[in-house]
Amino acid sequence: MKKTKILLSEKELPRQWYNIQADMPNKPLPPLHPVTREPIGPDALSAVFPMELIKQEVSQERYIDIPDEVVDLYKMYRPSPMYRAHNLEKALGTKSRIYYKYEGGNYSGSHKANTAIAQAYYNKMEGIKRITTETGAGQWGSAMSFACNHFGLDLLVFMVRVSYDHKPGRKVMMNAYNAKVVPSPSTMTESGRKILEQDPDSPGSLGIAISEAMEIAMQDPYTKYSLGSVLNHVILHQTVIGQEALLQMEKAGDYPDVVIGCFGGGSNFSGIAFPFLREKLLNGKDIRLVTVEPASCPKLTKGKFMYDFGDSAGMTPLLPMYTLGHNFIPEKIHAGGLRYHGAGVLVSQLLKDGFIEAKAKLQRECFEAGVLFARTEGILPAPESNYAIAAALDEARKSDLAGESRVILFNLSGHGHMDISAYEKYFEGYLPDHEMTTEEVEAAIEAIELPN
Amino acid sequence: MKKTKILLSEKELPRQWYNIQADMPNKPLPPLHPVTREPIGPDALSAVFPMELIKQEVSQERYIDIPDEVVDLYKMYRPSPMYRAHNLEKALGTKSRIYYKYEGGNYSGSHKANTAIAQAYYNKMEGIKRITTETGAGQWGSAMSFACNHFGLDLLVFMVRVSYDHKPGRKVMMNAYNAKVVPSPSTMTESGRKILEQDPDSPGSLGIAISEAMEIAMQDPYTKYSLGSVLNHVILHQTVIGQEALLQMEKAGDYPDVVIGCFGGGSNFSGIAFPFLREKLLNGKDIRLVTVEPASCPKLTKGKFMYDFGDSAGMTPLLPMYTLGHNFIPEKIHAGGLRYHGAGVLVSQLLKDGFIEAKAKLQRECFEAGVLFARTEGILPAPESNYAIAAALDEARKSDLAGESRVILFNLSGHGHMDISAYEKYFEGYLPDHEMTTEEVEAAIEAIELPN
Repeated sequence: MKKTKILLSEKELPRQWYNIQADMPNKPLPPLHPVTREPIGPDALSAVFPMELIKQEVSQERYIDIPDEVVDLYKMYRPSPMYRAHNLEKALGTKSRIYYKYEGGNYSGSHKANTAIAQAYYNKMEGIKRITTETGAGQWGSAMSFACNHFGLDLLVFMVRVSYDHKPGRKVMMNAYNAKVVPSPSTMTESGRKILEQDPDSPGSLGIAISEAMEIAMQDPYTKYSLGSVLNHVILHQTVIGQEALLQMEKAGDYPDVVIGCFGGGSNFSGIAFPFLREKLLNGKDIRLVTVEPASCPKLTKGKFMYDFGDSAGMTPLLPMYTLGHNFIPEKIHAGGLRYHGAGVLVSQLLKDGFIEAKAKLQRECFEAGVLFARTEGILPAPESNYAIAAALDEARKSDLAGESRVILFNLSGHGHMDISAYEKYFEGYLPDHEMTTEEVEAAIEAIELPN
Repeated sequence: MKKTKILLSEKELPRQWYNIQADMPNKPLPPLHPVTREPIGPDALSAVFPMELIKQEVSQERYIDIPDEVVDLYKMYRPSPMYRAHNLEKALGTKSRIYYKYEGGNYSGSHKANTAIAQAYYNKMEGIKRITTETGAGQWGSAMSFACNHFGLDLLVFMVRVSYDHKPGRKVMMNAYNAKVVPSPSTMTESGRKILEQDPDSPGSLGIAISEAMEIAMQDPYTKYSLGSVLNHVILHQTVIGQEALLQMEKAGDYPDVVIGCFGGGSNFSGIAFPFLREKLLNGKDIRLVTVEPASCPKLTKGKFMYDFGDSAGMTPLLPMYTLGHNFIPEKIHAGGLRYHGAGVLVSQLLKDGFIEAKAKLQRECFEAGVLFARTEGILPAPESNYAIAAALDEARKSDLAGESRVILFNLSGHGHMDISAYEKYFEGYLPDHEMTTEEVEAAIEAIELPN
């Protein structure tokens, strides 16, 4: 019988995260102070993050040990399975071999648990009592809710309003894990009130929610802020995915020609791709690494590489990244986790240097791919993950047209059981497609306001 | 570090289902023809079921081989994990050891996939083109939708109206797997129309939905009917759970004093419990097997052991079972999968003979247990599974009061990601508790109408 599931034993669970900063040919540019424009040091972040995470943020060590307490919780659901998509391949009639790593099998339903557990742990170790954070589609908030509750930390989640309204289930799930959830923009913060004054019906954005969460965190020394993507330490924690995937491809007796991840801030893509990129950088392995973002939020494919803020109110340092502008409010697409104006610093630099590729896709095609995937492979994917599936199908079809066979690996970052209203809209035909034009992108970037 | 997850390799996936009929001290009474009251033979079922499933329904063989094609699909998600609930134990401060087998990790989110795949396969092998079925909470319908689509069968699902209205997500999920879903009672069938005439606002019941699905199936030789619980062959397929659990307990170096499953028609309970019951019957292992049903639908704890119909319209043979009457419409509790008037024949006989125990619980207490479980073990349970958790907590607390330590194993039959509205109601305090009184049960049984 054909092998469809490639599993690792608990003993094979990686004990180290991989830090790509050690191996980047061009190191990322430093974050800048928004007023002085001088590079800021780690200390500037200590108002919002615990020291251990700040150290990871700037570390140049290639490997960082995963603490035993984090490994213990990882063992609830890791190593995660990898599958050979035999049934999908058959439906496509492709000569390519398609694999996917499934990160939706854990309590939170997505890869976000990998960093949530680590972040909650480090905050707990430094005596923090309360965490604030943002969430888009709610995967990150759910992941962090359980992790904080486990380590005895209170959690306050600012949830992007359009997701809060569209996906009430995620709010209830966070409540079930003992977290408090507020729709953002809210009246709880100055940055939220400012947005609401301008637009009382603001659908919100991750950028706004980040501002709100940071504002609260800065008011109390025992409260810290936590981010679910974008930052280097978040991406570091996610590399456990790719570390496992390397072992699993070896067990499958195969090696990917291309590794694909959907793209919001960068964490699920980087998580699976960076360990493979290490093999390319250090051992000359020939491999393509492909990000897939929504055509309505095309920071990597159409945005500008520049210093910009990570949040809408300008509370973060200035970061060197591909961006559509920190005030940009993306279309209300159903892949809420991909509605972010900027890209993480590491991915931005690597894209700029030509080590990775970027693609953009319209949402209807992605849902179509997701439904084909569900009907063949069984798992109903998260709307975000559908972008990776659609790109994997492109790769397979292109190979077949060229008479070639490729080995394709993608990250199935989550399941869609809590995003079912998006599928309902898709089946009903109410899923508008919007591709952001070059003019719209230029206007968005024109509108960026930075301090002089 | 403590071992929390007990895994089996793909090679350890059981290749045989266990048929408890071989080992029952008192064989179940035969099904009867409703009019002649004579025992009916297998042929009487051939209008609605394929021959291979009918053979399994009456088989006296102890083990039945799982076909390779079914094993292939089982491998998508089996063997399923078993967990030691260290964090839950710690929160309870119990001296007992609590284990759970998790059946929610597959595409359908519940144990129902185990029989869906087998049933779709056997129908396909016998040239069937279309299947009709019922679903309550939607777990069964989702499981069957993917399985039918995989084997190229059309599927028509009659979904109990109260679940259809409360849980629109499950309908969309079935659509995603290519199935057609109709709320029941419907105007598509005579039995549905009859119910609607009497009560246009009927919330429906599994009994009604079964009648509708059977009625359609009997109109066409290429259409068969499929049931998600109750019947012997369904329970047979679910024993893969307990077969694995036996191996996993051995790997854990432990053995349960008590095995617990929530109870609707009997399939998840029997699936985990029957292989352990075999060890009791054949090898004298000392073990308790406990079913947990809703106090608002107490067929095992308060119902009557008698011949009754499996469906509301009286289309099934008369079956010897604990029942509240085939016309009984259970309260609209949120554990839709447990809203069934009768108990499977095998469980009924075994309960009558004292080999298993039955408990009933109120829903609020079960949700409370489910939330504690989510906060400690991570997984948000299906409302049905909460009944098993609540009973496991009872066992642990009782042991502690007695100064003892027990080994408790329960079946976590599914996750609750698609039942989040039930949790919302719980948190909002809108979850009424109703315990069916002895008088109400007597009145329900009094109202049973059987042909003379």
